[in-house]
Amino acid sequence: MSETIITPRPISWFPEHSPENRRIELELLDNIRRGYELAGFTNIETPAVERTEVLISKGADDKEIYTLWRLNAEDWEKDDRLALHFDLTVPMARYVAQRYNDLTFPFRRYQIQKVWRWERAQWGRYREFYQADIDIVGDGKLPLSADVEVLTTIDNVLSWLNIWDYTIRLNNRKIIVGFIQSLGIQDDQMVSQVTRIIDKMPKVWELEVRKLLWNLGIEGEVNDDIVAFCLMASQWNESVLEYLSKINFPEVQAGVAELQEVYNQAKMLWMDEKRITLDPSIARWLWYYTGTIYETFLKGHEWLGSICSGGRYDNLASYFTDKKLPWVWVSIGVSRLLTRLLEQEKLNTKIQSPSKVLVTRLQERYAETYLRILWELRKSGIPSELYLGDGVKIGKQLGYANKKWIPYAIVAGEDEISQNKVQLKHMYTGDREQVSIDQVMDRVKVLLSQEK
Amino acid sequence: MSETIITPRPISWFPEHSPENRRIELELLDNIRRGYELAGFTNIETPAVERTEVLISKGADDKEIYTLWRLNAEDWEKDDRLALHFDLTVPMARYVAQRYNDLTFPFRRYQIQKVWRWERAQWGRYREFYQADIDIVGDGKLPLSADVEVLTTIDNVLSWLNIWDYTIRLNNRKIIVGFIQSLGIQDDQMVSQVTRIIDKMPKVWELEVRKLLWNLGIEGEVNDDIVAFCLMASQWNESVLEYLSKINFPEVQAGVAELQEVYNQAKMLWMDEKRITLDPSIARWLWYYTGTIYETFLKGHEWLGSICSGGRYDNLASYFTDKKLPWVWVSIGVSRLLTRLLEQEKLNTKIQSPSKVLVTRLQERYAETYLRILWELRKSGIPSELYLGDGVKIGKQLGYANKKWIPYAIVAGEDEISQNKVQLKHMYTGDREQVSIDQVMDRVKVLLSQEK
Repeated sequence: MSETIITPRPISWFPEHSPENRRIELELLDNIRRGYELAGFTNIETPAVERTEVLISKGADDKEIYTLWRLNAEDWEKDDRLALHFDLTVPMARYVAQRYNDLTFPFRRYQIQKVWRWERAQWGRYREFYQADIDIVGDGKLPLSADVEVLTTIDNVLSWLNIWDYTIRLNNRKIIVGFIQSLGIQDDQMVSQVTRIIDKMPKVWELEVRKLLWNLGIEGEVNDDIVAFCLMASQWNESVLEYLSKINFPEVQAGVAELQEVYNQAKMLWMDEKRITLDPSIARWLWYYTGTIYETFLKGHEWLGSICSGGRYDNLASYFTDKKLPWVWVSIGVSRLLTRLLEQEKLNTKIQSPSKVLVTRLQERYAETYLRILWELRKSGIPSELYLGDGVKIGKQLGYANKKWIPYAIVAGEDEISQNKVQLKHMYTGDREQVSIDQVMDRVKVLLSQEK
Repeated sequence: MSETIITPRPISWFPEHSPENRRIELELLDNIRRGYELAGFTNIETPAVERTEVLISKGADDKEIYTLWRLNAEDWEKDDRLALHFDLTVPMARYVAQRYNDLTFPFRRYQIQKVWRWERAQWGRYREFYQADIDIVGDGKLPLSADVEVLTTIDNVLSWLNIWDYTIRLNNRKIIVGFIQSLGIQDDQMVSQVTRIIDKMPKVWELEVRKLLWNLGIEGEVNDDIVAFCLMASQWNESVLEYLSKINFPEVQAGVAELQEVYNQAKMLWMDEKRITLDPSIARWLWYYTGTIYETFLKGHEWLGSICSGGRYDNLASYFTDKKLPWVWVSIGVSRLLTRLLEQEKLNTKIQSPSKVLVTRLQERYAETYLRILWELRKSGIPSELYLGDGVKIGKQLGYANKKWIPYAIVAGEDEISQNKVQLKHMYTGDREQVSIDQVMDRVKVLLSQEK
């Protein structure tokens, strides 16, 4: 037995929370899950580990991947065949391809797990973080209503958080690519470079965009057109649609028809149209989107980047199967959202316990009574705990309840117990009341229901 | 874009479930969480990753540890400073030591996470699996009631599963060690070897134990005494206590007093005494237990090993702090329990969706009506989904609901909608009824509440 003490320190970029903050993270995860299940998405979980060849199949940045090596196992030293997943998309594609014959399509899945990425140190970036994805995967075909389901589900979840205004930006990849082609820019490489410049628009100034385009040799009217296209994001949705409908180019019109349909159906589902911004300039950097694109920003915190993004691909699992699986997907960046949540003043970030009642222990000879009360509380479904600290000083016990923000405490000494009563202390207000032992469970239930 | 297809295969020993089985795992995890929170345990989560020096501090088998290496990053090639945790105990000890000044003691935590261990291939062993731990950590002292809290919490959770008989075996480390010393065996090495033999008793035959003892040179009366001690596990609890109280040795008596107290308090909390087996022969292989020891077996499935074990240590975090932190702990082996759960015939292992209602789509011109019904269902908190498959053939849509075991389907064509009605199909029975659109939500709610 070594007596050396290893001073424990946090590991940078691997977030770990206090019990108070973890409680808030858990509530966030619960809300997301509830919203996903309400819309009929079923949960799957894949191992943290995939074959390395699977992870790099899509051309991922392999410098970001953590492989697994057994410690001190010489014979295995050169083995990096297994690695931690860096997102939930690749594992999902592998899962669907592998289980194609057993799954029911359209397959609606949600998946909430941690992912790992070696990223350069940067604010708001972590090397371990939560993603919360939903997907609808079709077999062969998938109607546009799937795009709407994903959109309204996300909207529902975000609205439950009830603490910020947010905007879901909608676009269709066909519009942005078609628009660039309609200007006579045909070279794939060039289309891709201009797409990237347009996508930067919300973050950079107009002049900056002009300059970037000049650098590519794009000048004059075409330069003006692109800037005008970018600036549409600040217009009313109806104006954007009107503007886009005038771009006489088949690819753009195909995209506009899809965008219009998704927008209309979302409104049919009573989605608040103010929460949708039709923004032809968003592209997402991923080359494989083929239709709808989503990005979500917190109003006044656009600098944080998109907290929820996704889109439609025509072919989810082309690396793993020859089946054609169209796919609509969106992912909430839980860890990034949590960072913001914890800065909200409205939240009580002090609650350290799920307990609603602390049963104190005044005299050991009443131990059985205390245990009985505890048991009855729990039988009624009220989270509660017995004070387990050293000694029986009541001040220390109530101090414990205070520190953990437990809302009620039950105190019972000889006076109370001889009358078959207890004292019920309201820890937040300091109020106290006498209640008979048999009724204390019901009284607490009433008080808790009033709190909500 | 590569066109090579990588055939996806499962990775051995890293379990992954179908959506149906994942649903059952999730329910199991939810029940465990609910039981833990009911008893006032607060959740914490630590990163999957710890410093390697932290993980090996307790003398863990380092061959079981997976370290992290960046793929293809030459400059980092020799860096194995970070590794995946192989249990939740070491991270917990590190967490408590690191946050000693911010936590409120006694600190009650629960933690449900995956852990990773390179284990040799063996039935029922995984390299990635869930653990679900609770702990109560005292600062300086911790009363025996903590041992009872942990015991009754586990009992509560297991009883909710409601599908097996189980027995929680209780012992106290002082009894088994004291007993061996009382026979005149003093050498630490020898005490440890005999402890291991006694601990094997439930798995091996009496004769086998005798032989193992003979091999250590333990014969005659001492050999008989040890076998008799082992066999007590099959006696009534009261007989066991009576037998133990006659062993006139201070260490044993200290242990018996603690065991008796834990047993009495558990009964005060109305715990069914038939679910407790006082078993002086269990030892747990971990050297650091100092008091109460728990093991749990499913009746008729003892060969599975303990599905829930733990105990009391005098000093949780001696590697990370000089504070004395006594600690009671227990861990449910979720993955092992799940393996058994999935073999239970009582369970419906076919449900592939949280949806309670499938809204079918008969005619696209009624799309808005279908969306409205869907929206109202969800607003009422009823998980539901719109059929998103290709085409509108009703047989295919109902087939989808059948395959996913969605209990109700709403069907509405011209006939129904012209009367402002829908057809509500009971998928499990084939029954159908006509309900007005405005009342269908309430009708479904009534039906769902009757199901329970």
